[in-house]
Amino acid sequence: MDLADKFRGTRCLITGGLGFIGSHLAARLAGFGAWVTVVDSLIEGYGGNLFNVEAIKDRIRINISDVRDQSSTNWLVRNQDYLFNLAGTLSHIDSMTDPFTDLEINCRSQLSILESCRKFNPTVKVVFSGTRGEYGRAQYLPVDEKHPLCPTDTNGINNMAGELYHILYNNVYGIRAVSLRLTNVFGPHHQMRHSRQGYLNWFVRLAIDDQEVPIYGEGEQLRDFNYVDDVVEALLVAGAEPATDGEIYNLGSGKPVSVGDSARAVLEAAGTGRLKQIAFPEEKKKIEIGDYYADFSKFTRATGWQPKVEFADGLRRTVHFYRKHKEHYW
Amino acid sequence: MDLADKFRGTRCLITGGLGFIGSHLAARLAGFGAWVTVVDSLIEGYGGNLFNVEAIKDRIRINISDVRDQSSTNWLVRNQDYLFNLAGTLSHIDSMTDPFTDLEINCRSQLSILESCRKFNPTVKVVFSGTRGEYGRAQYLPVDEKHPLCPTDTNGINNMAGELYHILYNNVYGIRAVSLRLTNVFGPHHQMRHSRQGYLNWFVRLAIDDQEVPIYGEGEQLRDFNYVDDVVEALLVAGAEPATDGEIYNLGSGKPVSVGDSARAVLEAAGTGRLKQIAFPEEKKKIEIGDYYADFSKFTRATGWQPKVEFADGLRRTVHFYRKHKEHYW
Repeated sequence: MDLADKFRGTRCLITGGLGFIGSHLAARLAGFGAWVTVVDSLIEGYGGNLFNVEAIKDRIRINISDVRDQSSTNWLVRNQDYLFNLAGTLSHIDSMTDPFTDLEINCRSQLSILESCRKFNPTVKVVFSGTRGEYGRAQYLPVDEKHPLCPTDTNGINNMAGELYHILYNNVYGIRAVSLRLTNVFGPHHQMRHSRQGYLNWFVRLAIDDQEVPIYGEGEQLRDFNYVDDVVEALLVAGAEPATDGEIYNLGSGKPVSVGDSARAVLEAAGTGRLKQIAFPEEKKKIEIGDYYADFSKFTRATGWQPKVEFADGLRRTVHFYRKHKEHYW
Repeated sequence: MDLADKFRGTRCLITGGLGFIGSHLAARLAGFGAWVTVVDSLIEGYGGNLFNVEAIKDRIRINISDVRDQSSTNWLVRNQDYLFNLAGTLSHIDSMTDPFTDLEINCRSQLSILESCRKFNPTVKVVFSGTRGEYGRAQYLPVDEKHPLCPTDTNGINNMAGELYHILYNNVYGIRAVSLRLTNVFGPHHQMRHSRQGYLNWFVRLAIDDQEVPIYGEGEQLRDFNYVDDVVEALLVAGAEPATDGEIYNLGSGKPVSVGDSARAVLEAAGTGRLKQIAFPEEKKKIEIGDYYADFSKFTRATGWQPKVEFADGLRRTVHFYRKHKEHYW
């Protein structure tokens, strides 16, 4: 599929478009010649950062607003061909300490966005980003899409509800929607101010700063990493391919890495920093999911998508980016 | 297990306690000598009805309030031994026309109740009523608890989130909680003013009024009915049995009945009314789930529970009750 041909001249709305994945997607779509609007509320501590779109700011429309606001969303969804619905938060710890905010953003606002589509743009195609957190602890590996959904935190439950609203609106109202369940995504544009939205980028920061990189115990739990460019490609092909309507797909790498090995790979890519083993904190142990890696063959069969960027290569690109633009992220 | 022994002198809070199932449960618990508080907001069109507790009103405490109100809930959960969390709505059609109210009541308020427990009564045992609507269309029959969760309406998604919060709070915070996924429940005390919360009681009303009882097409879809007394027994044993903590169980009858046959059984029990076949309405077809019946053997293994009231017998009792108390329900 020629994605440039597919998206040239189309109108694309990206919620969470100033964030990590959304900003890369915006750049890719702008490069294709799409009319891109990014929506972001720049909530303190979340992933939005205007610097993420600095290089493309003259080629996209930036709309600062909150997807929880029905009125502005009603207006923004009009006349869009594609809605890449990436607004939301993935902080497991935050979702437990402030479950209502998590519910508002990850559950209620998804329903609100879909209602806006139903009323004002029922022909849009929606691509939603779900999360492996919907599965909770893996009951078998690799985890496929038939695995039971038993989230171990409020965030996983709210994301699951948010995702299922999409499938419901596809089935009942014909609002074409697809969900990709992302696993650990890493790369440039991720926020670097705290570790509550995934540990790998935080490790990158510590390594660049020549600090100790802490791993809990032996760091043996397996994780499944995708470099952000591969995820952007997946979002685009999911949007472009009609066979994905109403479907849910895992993403993954096919090459799980242990937490310990991922830390060592970060140190290798950075050439600075050092490992430190520490005891497993109690509050993290309670929501620790154990090993996880995905079977993403359903998505490959539907679209041909395969991850292309090797873990070590992705880490080198990530370190390079943050060394160059540290001032905008630290 | 001697339930009277188990509950005598205990403090029991029932949310939705003026409703269909909650009011029967309140009577049973009051009969055991428990200290019962029923909470209900008596929302117009929902199931709450003061007449449901008329016979026991001097033996229970009635608190009119909304579980969405965190402050009153914080107070009400204190010092309770058991919380039977039955507040909520099960209207499939309403949840599609007004999805935000459904979200507030079935999803957000559950999180709110659990937060109240976590802060003010972490030793309470919570019994939650889930729904077969969490499964959506059956992918195999009978449906066991491992069946994928693919709700076909907003209500099913919100109930699923509400249920999973309970399991999460059990696992993470040690708030002991169990969920029973109810199938079609029928009997006295069900609201009789509209058909949006289940069709069987509506059929009873039409038959008593000697009206036409409409079935869509041949009425071949299978349903799984439990008489309300059996469900109350299940809620009690789920509360009393420590092995249920953190678990989810189906209820069911073991004897599925087609919609057509259930209508004929209602007419038989009433001795009045007549059948009328009509075309399947479009808006109902979209969220129609096809055949459903449950495998409830997991709950039987854990607690010994078995449904006791035969469908025809339950219908006779139901018709008898409404003929006698029609003025309070029509």
